[in-house]
Amino acid sequence: MSLPGEFELIRTLQQYAPSHPGVRVGIGDDTAVLDGPAGKYTLLATDLLVAGEHFFPDADTYAVGRKSLAVNVSDIAAMGGYPTYAVVSVGLPADISAAKVERLYAGLRDECLLHGMTIVGGDTVRAPVLTINVALQGEVESDRLLLRKGALVGDKLCVTNRLGEAAAGLLLLQRPELSVPYAVRQRLELAQTRPVARLQAGRELGEGRAGTGVPFPTAALDVSDGLAGDVRHLCLASGVGAFIDANLLPVSDDVLAVGVAAGIDPLQLALSGGEDYELLFTTSSQRTGRHTLPRSGTSYTVIGEIVPAADGILLQRGDAPPEPLQAGGYTHF
Amino acid sequence: MSLPGEFELIRTLQQYAPSHPGVRVGIGDDTAVLDGPAGKYTLLATDLLVAGEHFFPDADTYAVGRKSLAVNVSDIAAMGGYPTYAVVSVGLPADISAAKVERLYAGLRDECLLHGMTIVGGDTVRAPVLTINVALQGEVESDRLLLRKGALVGDKLCVTNRLGEAAAGLLLLQRPELSVPYAVRQRLELAQTRPVARLQAGRELGEGRAGTGVPFPTAALDVSDGLAGDVRHLCLASGVGAFIDANLLPVSDDVLAVGVAAGIDPLQLALSGGEDYELLFTTSSQRTGRHTLPRSGTSYTVIGEIVPAADGILLQRGDAPPEPLQAGGYTHF
Repeated sequence: MSLPGEFELIRTLQQYAPSHPGVRVGIGDDTAVLDGPAGKYTLLATDLLVAGEHFFPDADTYAVGRKSLAVNVSDIAAMGGYPTYAVVSVGLPADISAAKVERLYAGLRDECLLHGMTIVGGDTVRAPVLTINVALQGEVESDRLLLRKGALVGDKLCVTNRLGEAAAGLLLLQRPELSVPYAVRQRLELAQTRPVARLQAGRELGEGRAGTGVPFPTAALDVSDGLAGDVRHLCLASGVGAFIDANLLPVSDDVLAVGVAAGIDPLQLALSGGEDYELLFTTSSQRTGRHTLPRSGTSYTVIGEIVPAADGILLQRGDAPPEPLQAGGYTHF
Repeated sequence: MSLPGEFELIRTLQQYAPSHPGVRVGIGDDTAVLDGPAGKYTLLATDLLVAGEHFFPDADTYAVGRKSLAVNVSDIAAMGGYPTYAVVSVGLPADISAAKVERLYAGLRDECLLHGMTIVGGDTVRAPVLTINVALQGEVESDRLLLRKGALVGDKLCVTNRLGEAAAGLLLLQRPELSVPYAVRQRLELAQTRPVARLQAGRELGEGRAGTGVPFPTAALDVSDGLAGDVRHLCLASGVGAFIDANLLPVSDDVLAVGVAAGIDPLQLALSGGEDYELLFTTSSQRTGRHTLPRSGTSYTVIGEIVPAADGILLQRGDAPPEPLQAGGYTHF
């Protein structure tokens, strides 16, 4: 069969999973939320990365090691939390070199050092292709928890930094013949291969949630599947719709250059590219435009607003009337 | 390169992992031991199962689902704890049928129901072969914690139930032409494909550790790599050696029958077969022979005793002088 949408399988698993009083949020948000030490929740996330699906078979394993942790840190960040402990499973193909394995572990180590987290266990087995699973535990103060649900009609929809760079980088890796300046290629390929989890921004949004910072977020998640897919996740969880103004999407000149070189609409990269690992959030603040989270210096842009569920998810391009935004889900290469 | 011993890679990872005050035991025991809620530790284990390495590509996915959780529950049991929450990553090949995926999830569900644990998150991706990673959290009361270290010279070495059945079952699956009675084949193949985590026995040994039960265990782990390999793990962690009397190993008539049919020494199945998921533990009790844990009714057998590290790990067969026991590590089929 074709791979069913992640959501569908997750729903199946959800039906099968017995409930438990210690589970505040189970399957369906960026991480599970479990009763934790006094005043805190324990967060638990997991991601499986497979060569040929999530990274190129000849990718630098250092980058693969860092990315395998970073994508989980991003999930923790989207809950307002911070990572603590990881367990890492590695499946090694028979022909992998010792140097590649060492670089993989060096990548895991450096990502741990960056975020103050610790690898406390693991499993190493033989596999047909390089396969890495990370399960990452984190914590969040109970008044700082950010969920996918909670967005209200009239809230502004915001995203940190820029969109579409990871997708543009993937396109450049797939099409080395595309003519873009060297520095642009370097920046975008790094955005694809070395994603940065927005941990400080997530912590700061969590403080906003607790009333000790600005803005006050009502819902949040990380942009892993692409804006079009992830705004849908937020809307489904919150029981709302969304209106997005394409003119407001934060798309860099780098991404525009790739659009020109490849002859594709850069908006597609921003909407359905995926793997940006930026934070998408809603806030009750009525400010529009571009702003900066004061402590981490992370920029964020208001790209639209929350509307009633009956209106669906709408995209306005130029002066044309808004049209329904297709899920346009991110497809692994 | 050839796959280095799991221990070697684990050591590499250990060097790379920053230390953290909340980590009571990091890489190197059956699970990590982390500071937990008042009076308890949090346990964290992970295992990666890959088709063709850990189960046959045509295996019943229901059994695969149960086994992927059971092997992690076994790790939690070996620490004296009980499982709470799991996150499950699944890599699906393009040609897997919907029915097989449903049976996989049904197996996961049933193993959860058996042990009162909950699947709280997951990831579903495309992979070249069926790939399942489970990360399992558990808890243990701090005075019931069982570690690989702690065995003292003179302690008795014990193992629950019987050894070699999973290895005998694997041999029967690999060699359908072997002539053994139908019921024997059924029992042993089930021992291979549907391992049972000794959770109640582990809890009871934990109570013994806390002084509220018998016997008093000084060290413990689960037999996943095979007795010869796992007794080595216990000895390395405890800084001791071990003496094992081959005549005392609990080997069933079923395993003897497979030895005869296949023309191999059943002792090899018991020593280096692996995947028995029985509990190997040491106790300061000086009783010998076969006993029963009173509450769970689990039988256990004294198979030898702990000796100074300088003596190494010794096996006595019949009346011959003891000889060094080769690691004879379990090799995945």
